[in-house]
Amino acid sequence: MVDDISSDGKGKPALDHLINSEDTALRQRALRVVPSGMWGHLHAAKLPEGYPQFFARGEGAHLWDVDGHRYLDFMCSWGPNLLGHQNQEVEEAAERQRRMGDCLNGPAPVMVELAERLVETLPAAAWAMFQKNGTDATTTCATLARAATGRRKLLVARGAYHGAVPWCSPSLVGVTSEDRAHLVHYRFNDLDSLAQAVAEAGDDLAGIIASAFRHDLAQDQELPSPAFARAVRDACDAKGAALILDEVRAGFRLHAGGSWETLGVRPDLSAWSKAIGNGYPISAVTGAEWLREAASRLFVTGSFWCGAVPMAAALATLGVVLRDDVPGQLARLGQRLRDGLAAGAQRHGIALRQSGPPQMPLVLFDDDIGSRKGDAFCVAMLAHGVYFHPRHNMFLSAAHTEADIDTALAAAEHGFAAVASL
Amino acid sequence: MVDDISSDGKGKPALDHLINSEDTALRQRALRVVPSGMWGHLHAAKLPEGYPQFFARGEGAHLWDVDGHRYLDFMCSWGPNLLGHQNQEVEEAAERQRRMGDCLNGPAPVMVELAERLVETLPAAAWAMFQKNGTDATTTCATLARAATGRRKLLVARGAYHGAVPWCSPSLVGVTSEDRAHLVHYRFNDLDSLAQAVAEAGDDLAGIIASAFRHDLAQDQELPSPAFARAVRDACDAKGAALILDEVRAGFRLHAGGSWETLGVRPDLSAWSKAIGNGYPISAVTGAEWLREAASRLFVTGSFWCGAVPMAAALATLGVVLRDDVPGQLARLGQRLRDGLAAGAQRHGIALRQSGPPQMPLVLFDDDIGSRKGDAFCVAMLAHGVYFHPRHNMFLSAAHTEADIDTALAAAEHGFAAVASL
Repeated sequence: MVDDISSDGKGKPALDHLINSEDTALRQRALRVVPSGMWGHLHAAKLPEGYPQFFARGEGAHLWDVDGHRYLDFMCSWGPNLLGHQNQEVEEAAERQRRMGDCLNGPAPVMVELAERLVETLPAAAWAMFQKNGTDATTTCATLARAATGRRKLLVARGAYHGAVPWCSPSLVGVTSEDRAHLVHYRFNDLDSLAQAVAEAGDDLAGIIASAFRHDLAQDQELPSPAFARAVRDACDAKGAALILDEVRAGFRLHAGGSWETLGVRPDLSAWSKAIGNGYPISAVTGAEWLREAASRLFVTGSFWCGAVPMAAALATLGVVLRDDVPGQLARLGQRLRDGLAAGAQRHGIALRQSGPPQMPLVLFDDDIGSRKGDAFCVAMLAHGVYFHPRHNMFLSAAHTEADIDTALAAAEHGFAAVASL
Repeated sequence: MVDDISSDGKGKPALDHLINSEDTALRQRALRVVPSGMWGHLHAAKLPEGYPQFFARGEGAHLWDVDGHRYLDFMCSWGPNLLGHQNQEVEEAAERQRRMGDCLNGPAPVMVELAERLVETLPAAAWAMFQKNGTDATTTCATLARAATGRRKLLVARGAYHGAVPWCSPSLVGVTSEDRAHLVHYRFNDLDSLAQAVAEAGDDLAGIIASAFRHDLAQDQELPSPAFARAVRDACDAKGAALILDEVRAGFRLHAGGSWETLGVRPDLSAWSKAIGNGYPISAVTGAEWLREAASRLFVTGSFWCGAVPMAAALATLGVVLRDDVPGQLARLGQRLRDGLAAGAQRHGIALRQSGPPQMPLVLFDDDIGSRKGDAFCVAMLAHGVYFHPRHNMFLSAAHTEADIDTALAAAEHGFAAVASL
């Protein structure tokens, strides 16, 4: 059911389709009025040639670029699209709230309903607060850990992404050394480095921040080892520090009760965003009882943080996640994709690495200097109407079907052929 | 046309209406699942008793609380509501985009259209970038000034509000001294203190941040003196530093081309949010040509920053602002309110201070320790269906009519009576 966008119909990478296209025209206009034409993680310059920068439309698991090419999408807006674009239940809930009001002089009742639902759903949560960006949530967690403990040091895994402001940005452009004065680094899943960092922080340890799993760019993903998760919990307990789980990327794809529930380790604070409103802009902090008092002393706010429409969308999203066991559904789809890709790679004699949770696939090739293989693979898939990412973890949505997975596997045959011909 | 919500119809503050109300019930539920029941600037605990925390609905210049009381609103969602709730042109533009897509794998064409429109409209802007919170915009400006200059010091007016994260928050809870290591304070409109701060920053001056006008909480507002604005510009020019104008609160209410256009002083960077999307969550940074290269090196991003629906709303909002001269319209309405309040106060023998631009009214009473007079005034107005704020600047919208102003003035008679009877 995928529109083949290659110009010759033979499945070769069809980069020519961007020449004189609407996408090219928009990029040229954008270059005049937006620095480098785009910013941040959605900048198409970070993708191989042939990827579109601008999108016209989304529906279910499909995207259309501005030149009318349709893609079966495996990035899901880099996470937010959990149930599919234009999901009917979410859109109806959002529309009902929209007809009443969104941004008012205070919250709407849906704020309480959403907070209640999160507290019911997440065993680690006694309370919730709402914001806009994932970075709002991680920054609030960091500030709150300091407020609650009266200490300053935060342990952060080296290479982990927790947002794009000076204290945590992957870039040092415009950042001063003071912005990171109280960060101490450890290596994810490495108990010795964790113990060393805890010792270094000494009596000044406010909190330990960990991603739900290790999802650093262009690295094999790693689920947390039970021993690591336990060691983080024990260190926080021993020091009276806060365990901060960054769920921004993984939240509601791994486990509806929190990504570390299967490990039996509960965080003190969790930062949520991306998928929780199925594309509507909302993030959240949830926390344990002992942090409630400090949270009420904190001053954090934003003009749109009480926006009621994203809250209504989040409440509807959470309802579907629980009713339909979306994490389980995505795990099954992801495993089908993983198994199929592994089999395809084997047939083509290509060494492929797939890591991390199947709900958030990452496909890397052995001996792939400069991502030549990954790029060729993804460009060929793109030319056959399937949007993969060569270096970043991808995302499944509940709008994907088994047939969609099989469609992707068919396109991957062209990808493997492209890699084999390098 | 205001529903009188006082229980006795005589215009006394009718605080009893909250007992056993839906608002009270929601507050009690919220206390269990949200720290102190609410956070930030929309926390009703910061308002006199009787103000509702929760809102059901907004339409035009009116709000309804969850108990069905209707208010003629002069806070306008604390800024975002510029054209009135449910403004038809904005909602239609948003809905057209929503049917296509909002949060995709990249921006929609509307991003380019909005950036082009801002660059056309703002003489100081060569480019634009989009974000979610006002704090995103001010933080990006600060980081960008450092990136472009390779220097660290930022001059900030003492008492000015530029956001709610550690580097600029009005609260020190959870903040470390390093978070503010490179801030140097000056006094708004005070040339000597500005010169001293510039000297203190020395060769390390990256930028000077100024609000469009001085709007510190519970202080008389001050428009910038032409000499002050010129001195800020001259200091930046002399040092090669960036003049950062914080337009988050004032933007598009004072002047559609930028709040300092009438002073003949153009900023290098401007931070926009609140009103620009008429309630839809969006903020923006606009900048001068010399900062474009540094802006393209910066890594700033967010999961929802390419959201196309708020961009479509902003494009429609900007169209109405320009076509209808909304700043001029609000200035005339604001002057009518100011004149009427001044006359009313005089009749009642009450000493009132109104300051700053008429589009953003602030009403303070002389000798008002603990805001007793301001609170009594506003509570009486609230009881007569008009939502004023006793200490924070208010906001007019294009949905306000002259009749609305007269309605507010009629309610103010009850407010003045309440103050006189203290």
